[in-house]
Amino acid sequence: MQSRDIIVAPATALGGAIAVIRMSGEGSIALCNRIFKGRKPLTEAASHTIHYGTICDGERVVDDVVVAIFRAPHSYTGEESIEISIHGSRYIASEVIRLLCGQGARMAEAGEFSQRALAAGRIDLSQAEAVADLIASESRAAHAIAATQMRGGYSTLLDSLREELLAVTSLLELELDFSEEDVEFADRKRLEQMLTKTDGVVTRLMESFRVGNAIREGVAVAIVGRPNVGKSTLLNRLVGDDRAMVSDIAGTTRDTIEESVVIDDIRFRFVDTAGLHDTEDRLEKMGIERTERAIREAQVVLYMMEPTQAELELPKLDAEQTLLLVVNKIDISTERNIEDAIYISAREGEGIDALRRALRNTVDTEGLYRGEVVVSNMRHFEALSRAHHDIEAALRALESGISEELLAEDIRSAITALAEITGHITSDDILRNIFSHFCIGK
Amino acid sequence: MQSRDIIVAPATALGGAIAVIRMSGEGSIALCNRIFKGRKPLTEAASHTIHYGTICDGERVVDDVVVAIFRAPHSYTGEESIEISIHGSRYIASEVIRLLCGQGARMAEAGEFSQRALAAGRIDLSQAEAVADLIASESRAAHAIAATQMRGGYSTLLDSLREELLAVTSLLELELDFSEEDVEFADRKRLEQMLTKTDGVVTRLMESFRVGNAIREGVAVAIVGRPNVGKSTLLNRLVGDDRAMVSDIAGTTRDTIEESVVIDDIRFRFVDTAGLHDTEDRLEKMGIERTERAIREAQVVLYMMEPTQAELELPKLDAEQTLLLVVNKIDISTERNIEDAIYISAREGEGIDALRRALRNTVDTEGLYRGEVVVSNMRHFEALSRAHHDIEAALRALESGISEELLAEDIRSAITALAEITGHITSDDILRNIFSHFCIGK
Repeated sequence: MQSRDIIVAPATALGGAIAVIRMSGEGSIALCNRIFKGRKPLTEAASHTIHYGTICDGERVVDDVVVAIFRAPHSYTGEESIEISIHGSRYIASEVIRLLCGQGARMAEAGEFSQRALAAGRIDLSQAEAVADLIASESRAAHAIAATQMRGGYSTLLDSLREELLAVTSLLELELDFSEEDVEFADRKRLEQMLTKTDGVVTRLMESFRVGNAIREGVAVAIVGRPNVGKSTLLNRLVGDDRAMVSDIAGTTRDTIEESVVIDDIRFRFVDTAGLHDTEDRLEKMGIERTERAIREAQVVLYMMEPTQAELELPKLDAEQTLLLVVNKIDISTERNIEDAIYISAREGEGIDALRRALRNTVDTEGLYRGEVVVSNMRHFEALSRAHHDIEAALRALESGISEELLAEDIRSAITALAEITGHITSDDILRNIFSHFCIGK
Repeated sequence: MQSRDIIVAPATALGGAIAVIRMSGEGSIALCNRIFKGRKPLTEAASHTIHYGTICDGERVVDDVVVAIFRAPHSYTGEESIEISIHGSRYIASEVIRLLCGQGARMAEAGEFSQRALAAGRIDLSQAEAVADLIASESRAAHAIAATQMRGGYSTLLDSLREELLAVTSLLELELDFSEEDVEFADRKRLEQMLTKTDGVVTRLMESFRVGNAIREGVAVAIVGRPNVGKSTLLNRLVGDDRAMVSDIAGTTRDTIEESVVIDDIRFRFVDTAGLHDTEDRLEKMGIERTERAIREAQVVLYMMEPTQAELELPKLDAEQTLLLVVNKIDISTERNIEDAIYISAREGEGIDALRRALRNTVDTEGLYRGEVVVSNMRHFEALSRAHHDIEAALRALESGISEELLAEDIRSAITALAEITGHITSDDILRNIFSHFCIGK
């Protein structure tokens, strides 16, 4: 965290018409100026101005570029920064970065720009994480979760929980100071109420994680059923292109193929699986093992069958998984004798809208759009779980009349857990781990 | 070409830390300002300045952004333009574009920004095409071809060829004016020399296309050989990851899988193919047909075998294709009895560097790095072919003593063909076709 050298990385994905290379650290402007030829030196440029010129490797022109100047502290990192817009070729990007590194910059590590913004106090940790989630958001729901978190709504709620717990510890500490006089300042009833209320909020946040995580990662839907029932055809229909190799030979699909598609405001990740049937073929066996894993990891299992199928071999699901029964090939048979099933023709497209609606309805977003904080980050969920565990221990201790010292220790542990989320209490290891999951250039 | 409405598109690829939305046309700044909240209105901003603020959908904040202002004529298109840097999420990009379109912008068509730059006379047609090639360049060689073309080296050469041919027509027309006096002003010998010289340059450009196109598109290498000889293992080794599904069951690879990798300054596209052997299996038959197509389309065929393989079943290649014989599994057998073969162990990595060198040496880039113009565009190749055909016809006409009128017609036809490359003579159809192959946002 101390090092304040000059870091550089592509800030955009490569492959578009243009790409942006970002550089941050004191001296960035002078460094870039050494490989830049323009009408006037970049070192003379004011903050928040743009300059046309060329990036040169000696006499060889590498690209025509536009350079944006950000002087400290008016940049994302709070440091002197520049952004170079180049033609969006991977080769040009690597050449420009190579030249900048040749002048003394170094490749940024993943998330290093955001880590500098954090160190400069421009954002807290949960907000830095929200920036990464915002970038990854592919649906309105995922965007809403990340935007609330980035704008500090989550931090505010966590701060109020910490304050509540701090109030409890103050009461207890006051009591400890007078412990020889055997006085009970802290009203036990009131302490219990405060802890129960806090635990209620923590529990609600924990419960929001199931939906929040599914929204953030995409709701996993495993499409399963006997061979040849039309799973790949349905996947193609839902995704709208021809990714899966469809054939009328049973058992064609050997690899699980994943495709994602946004239905209304939610992204779903569909996994087409190999058919569920007994086989001695080794490759097919591998496929079936993957199918079973796909089912375990799915939030929604879409069980597909033909109208003529006599028995249902439904996979075992746990309470939090949703099963959707889908009967395909209604263009061939019109029998409709299974209750709660959705009748479709994957080939003709009939019933697909009803299926989309059923899928969308497996996710409850009422709280999210009412403005409630929804937890979507595994690290936060784990910290909340620890806080919940500590508060429960404190409540039990309160009931059993345990000493104030042990009670206060449980509550302090809960406070620490909550403080880790916003980064009020943190370690370099935790930071390194968090930012290593950011993309390069953020 | 007349319409000058406001167009908008993502200028960068999506999926990075940030993304850039580009908008061009008179009124762009005022349009953006209607959904922008910042310290001051964008309409008051000077050209080449950057402004921090938020993009809002009514009360809902869609993103924190940075907007760059380009006032006419100081932009890529020559028109008033803006660039909005957003967090690089696909969802946010589509929301921002939706909001801008709601205010009256429309989605740009592929290449429409460059088409406006062309219409404004800022670049010629071959330069516009070079911009697209520059963006697509993934190797030093592809970059060198596109950069020469973008900087106008190619245009200058074509202009000089046109002038040479125009000089020939002037001489012929002078003669036509005096035709009743039966005078031969134009020295036939000199005309023939001029035409032969021009044809020589055109032919050299045409010949450069084979290498130029391979460099631009990536040199296609088909990896072929009997089942289980280690083709997928070699592909993985060359590409350095685990794209192909490797198994010790013969015939595992059914789809052709394409991977590309840059060796030194050249990109190679490797196609791993299904094994070459007789089969009744329908899926495998489909795979073998694809293999045969891959061989036909390859510049280099890498024939792979085991040391123990008695006969070589080499595919038939045409004169311009290169065959590389590779003997794999030298970790198992040390026999080395095939001349000109490269001995490797795909599994252990032995001999792979020698194979890479052999692959690199299949492409001759001497002329390119000496600064010669290399043609890499199919449209240019076709126009050059027509010019060559016309000049040859003119040379034959000259020899057979045909009338000046017909001779002049052939030469004018050649001039037209060359002028199409730079866009001096062109049609809306041709332009539409060219720009439709650009990416959106360029």
